[in-house]
Amino acid sequence: MSLWFYDTYQDETHFGLRVTKSLYHGRSEYQAIDIFETDLFGKVLALDGVFQTSVGDEYYYHEMLVHPALTTAPRVRNVLVIGGGDGGTVREVLSYPEVERVTMVEIDRMVVEACREHLPEIGRAWDDPRLTVLFEDGIAHIEQYQGEPLDVIIVDGPDPVGPAAGLFESSFYRTCRKQLFESGVLVLQSESPHIMREDFCRIVRNVRAVFPRARPYLSPVPIYASGGWSFVFASDAVDPLAVDEERSRRASGHCRYYNREIHDAVFALPNEIRALVSRPGEAERR
Amino acid sequence: MSLWFYDTYQDETHFGLRVTKSLYHGRSEYQAIDIFETDLFGKVLALDGVFQTSVGDEYYYHEMLVHPALTTAPRVRNVLVIGGGDGGTVREVLSYPEVERVTMVEIDRMVVEACREHLPEIGRAWDDPRLTVLFEDGIAHIEQYQGEPLDVIIVDGPDPVGPAAGLFESSFYRTCRKQLFESGVLVLQSESPHIMREDFCRIVRNVRAVFPRARPYLSPVPIYASGGWSFVFASDAVDPLAVDEERSRRASGHCRYYNREIHDAVFALPNEIRALVSRPGEAERR
Repeated sequence: MSLWFYDTYQDETHFGLRVTKSLYHGRSEYQAIDIFETDLFGKVLALDGVFQTSVGDEYYYHEMLVHPALTTAPRVRNVLVIGGGDGGTVREVLSYPEVERVTMVEIDRMVVEACREHLPEIGRAWDDPRLTVLFEDGIAHIEQYQGEPLDVIIVDGPDPVGPAAGLFESSFYRTCRKQLFESGVLVLQSESPHIMREDFCRIVRNVRAVFPRARPYLSPVPIYASGGWSFVFASDAVDPLAVDEERSRRASGHCRYYNREIHDAVFALPNEIRALVSRPGEAERR
Repeated sequence: MSLWFYDTYQDETHFGLRVTKSLYHGRSEYQAIDIFETDLFGKVLALDGVFQTSVGDEYYYHEMLVHPALTTAPRVRNVLVIGGGDGGTVREVLSYPEVERVTMVEIDRMVVEACREHLPEIGRAWDDPRLTVLFEDGIAHIEQYQGEPLDVIIVDGPDPVGPAAGLFESSFYRTCRKQLFESGVLVLQSESPHIMREDFCRIVRNVRAVFPRARPYLSPVPIYASGGWSFVFASDAVDPLAVDEERSRRASGHCRYYNREIHDAVFALPNEIRALVSRPGEAERR
């Protein structure tokens, strides 16, 4: 007998992985949480039946969410991460010695507890003294934040449905912008530009309604079965291609995916995506 | 009731698409052939149960298989395509007015007949007078070829199992090299660099055993559920980044995916892939 776990997208695709062992199943007040072993991806985390990350491919996502922002933001002392309960994102952020303080705001304590126990290979930086983990609503946290301006905000959220939907709205990005240092950077995952094209376009539009510079970039994530993934880099003033070479060199040194050439490459957009996200009047600059 | 078609990879993944209508099912002497409608990808072609291409995403694959080679090969008058029964590859090759003759060698006549009837949106160039379609074994064809040296050889084959396995062996690449113009280019698909990593590495090794210049490049294909796909560009003398700007500009003008920036971007390799494919002594050049 073989056991399969199926990630279903809008009753259009089933992406199934053969499970060799179930490690954890729980239901928090927010979602169902599953962690299981597979031969192909190693240990996998699923929330409400949707694959989130795996030990076998997590670096594709976490490195490419973090390093374009952390190698270009002029200051990276004070970083806020919304979501990211598996710990992979804060691990990459904490790899920078310039980072003095990372606050991770994850709504679901059970996700962090399950990942700390069953996925220690991903969240290798939980004990870093620069890290504070808060279990609360990310949107409310940013609205009420009264500390020093934030240098970088990273939104490591799930799909834009249910409780996470607010993380993809302009009102949220407006709040982020208010709490950012004037040359601060916001970065977020923005879904599959192919099979979730409407979501992708809406997210880009919503970020652009708030930030004068907002550039999508593309990088694959094997466990998100759709051939490619997207992220948005947003700032009032920072050019995502104006890289701090020393920081990028150090990141490249420890990364399995990210390097200096990949940094530039991911901002190249296919014609079709360019046309979708070009602002009025920008088309002729292609 | 909903109907699903599952692409199964080595009993490790099931990638299922919901089928709204079955259009064709046949069994040739080589394989089972299915063409069906889906909401997410439009019409899909599967061979022996493996998704090959779809109307919704075929340009990701066909443009990126063809244009890096056709915009850099010094001569593109005489092009040979092995496989490619859906007609998407020859369509892109024939978009170049410099191309005088394209020979497509597809082993399975039934695939071409089914695609001409049911996927005319993909094979839009079947009636181009510069195209000759031969139904025979591609390896035997190249071995026995006695015409003018070939400017570009494109191998548009399925996975390296069964009858197609020979398309991924050094002996085949050696035969290709003999039939190529001295500055000719060979390009081929080389599987998923993540979930089919052993195949990918073996193919790169086999090409490098024959061609002094052989560079893998990466570009996503949504219907190949693994987060990214790979191709190999091989030549005795041609630098895949030394682009004929006029040809590239023209290709960018009609393409949905390819453009000049994408051309450069796809040759940037993640650290892990770099390490896998670096030749001895090359590591320090990174």
